[in-house]
Amino acid sequence: MTILTFGHQNPDTDTITSALVMADLQTAAGKEVEAVRLGEVSAETQYALDKFNVSAPRLIEKVDGEEVILVDHNEFQQSAPGIESAHILMVVDHHRISNFETAAPLYYRAEPVGCTATILNKMYKENQIEVKPEIAGLMLSAIISDTLLFKSPTCTDEDVKAAEELEKIAGINKEEYGLEMLKAGASTADKSAEDLLNIDAKSFSMGEKEVRVAQVNTVDIDEVFARQEELENAINAETAQNGYDLFVLVVTDIIHSDSKILALGKEQEAVNKAFNVALDKNTALLKGVVSRKKQVVPQLTDVLS
Amino acid sequence: MTILTFGHQNPDTDTITSALVMADLQTAAGKEVEAVRLGEVSAETQYALDKFNVSAPRLIEKVDGEEVILVDHNEFQQSAPGIESAHILMVVDHHRISNFETAAPLYYRAEPVGCTATILNKMYKENQIEVKPEIAGLMLSAIISDTLLFKSPTCTDEDVKAAEELEKIAGINKEEYGLEMLKAGASTADKSAEDLLNIDAKSFSMGEKEVRVAQVNTVDIDEVFARQEELENAINAETAQNGYDLFVLVVTDIIHSDSKILALGKEQEAVNKAFNVALDKNTALLKGVVSRKKQVVPQLTDVLS
Repeated sequence: MTILTFGHQNPDTDTITSALVMADLQTAAGKEVEAVRLGEVSAETQYALDKFNVSAPRLIEKVDGEEVILVDHNEFQQSAPGIESAHILMVVDHHRISNFETAAPLYYRAEPVGCTATILNKMYKENQIEVKPEIAGLMLSAIISDTLLFKSPTCTDEDVKAAEELEKIAGINKEEYGLEMLKAGASTADKSAEDLLNIDAKSFSMGEKEVRVAQVNTVDIDEVFARQEELENAINAETAQNGYDLFVLVVTDIIHSDSKILALGKEQEAVNKAFNVALDKNTALLKGVVSRKKQVVPQLTDVLS
Repeated sequence: MTILTFGHQNPDTDTITSALVMADLQTAAGKEVEAVRLGEVSAETQYALDKFNVSAPRLIEKVDGEEVILVDHNEFQQSAPGIESAHILMVVDHHRISNFETAAPLYYRAEPVGCTATILNKMYKENQIEVKPEIAGLMLSAIISDTLLFKSPTCTDEDVKAAEELEKIAGINKEEYGLEMLKAGASTADKSAEDLLNIDAKSFSMGEKEVRVAQVNTVDIDEVFARQEELENAINAETAQNGYDLFVLVVTDIIHSDSKILALGKEQEAVNKAFNVALDKNTALLKGVVSRKKQVVPQLTDVLS
């Protein structure tokens, strides 16, 4: 039976491309592996796929006892419905480990680097499998996306080194291409409030609390906050439907590398403590904050756990 | 501050030696790492330490906010008291993942091989760090112990290949040395029932149930079961004290590669289903079963989850 490989819900560029790259890597190693996805392809990701002439993975709703390989995530609430009874053969990821378990031993590889693709790039080398130009382009796109063009504090020397290798193979300039790709994903005007909340949203269990953290990249924070009331209504509706204790929308300026947050929910107060701010009309500017993983989730987890 | 590295409670040979080997590897890489242990050194492990003239790691009772590297385990209930608030930098393991979580990204490496040492041996090569003869001896001892001299179904080609490399560096014959080491650990006559239950015992959460699985290696199964009443009293006492739903003692004949189990507790019935046997006086012979990880825990988990 074909093994399925996929990243998290609300897929971002690293998740979509890493599934494609993992399928390529495993296929080259003689396995039968298909890349699939758990949600819509973002404008940024579509830009990357078009650039390297690669089709998006097939959309699936759930898994049902298949053998699977997870990329770019491990927490079950971020994964496919039915993941609890799937047979997880392998995980390649760069996030904290939480709400993850298996009945049997598996291959699990996590490294504290900025991007799953940086680890996958190593795996090609370790297994002496050649990286094709379009695969290099996908991996480079993932690194640029996850590190916001190497500006995020999650970006490590290994990510930069991998990007330098990959831009040569892909035959493009990583800074020029990267800015175009980020801008393609940063257009917010044409999206509904609900769409904005779901571009890149993840749920986290923190202590006993369920926290939703959505992130939107933009080149104009004010343009997004001009629609604050509409966004608050959408957040309250999602919170009521899913029982979140806290919903934090992180709007990130990809040019200046700052974020303004909009926080609502029973545990709103946690935000003040976590970031040492005083929410004003449910918002606060977080200078220099661009990384949900490193600058938002651990801080909230500390306060709520 | 010195980073601590340790394996699981009721340490076996892989756990003790992998902590020592990880400390050696990290020290060679420029880190300040001390190997410690969470319990008594078994007769088998002491035989290996004496053979290669290496001291046992320091005994610790708990951790208290330190930076730690886990080897040969990940489940918190098998780890040091206080592990929930330690900063886990790295895990190298070959077990299923369960009841494990971190607040931040980390380096996690699990592979479905027979022994942690097989993965550590790769890491020396990847990092181009020389394996000293005594370190090779420790890794070889771990592989022999975990695979019962390559006879366990958990043993992979990678384990055998690693052992072949390591016996050359250590300058010993792996079969001759291995049988002597296993025999040194298989003496049961001089141990109390409580001692036997704690040579190599682990707790597992299976669904809502807490299951204790202890394993004893022997060259004479009948010698162990001559003390069945004494063992049952000790099991019942441990069960009452710790609230286990099921206690399974696996007595493994290392010469013939079979096991006889003694099972007690509220969920005793699960054993019949898991192994397709009918317990007779709380015991059953499991032909060809030698691996707790592969032939006992998944089968019980399936029935109880």
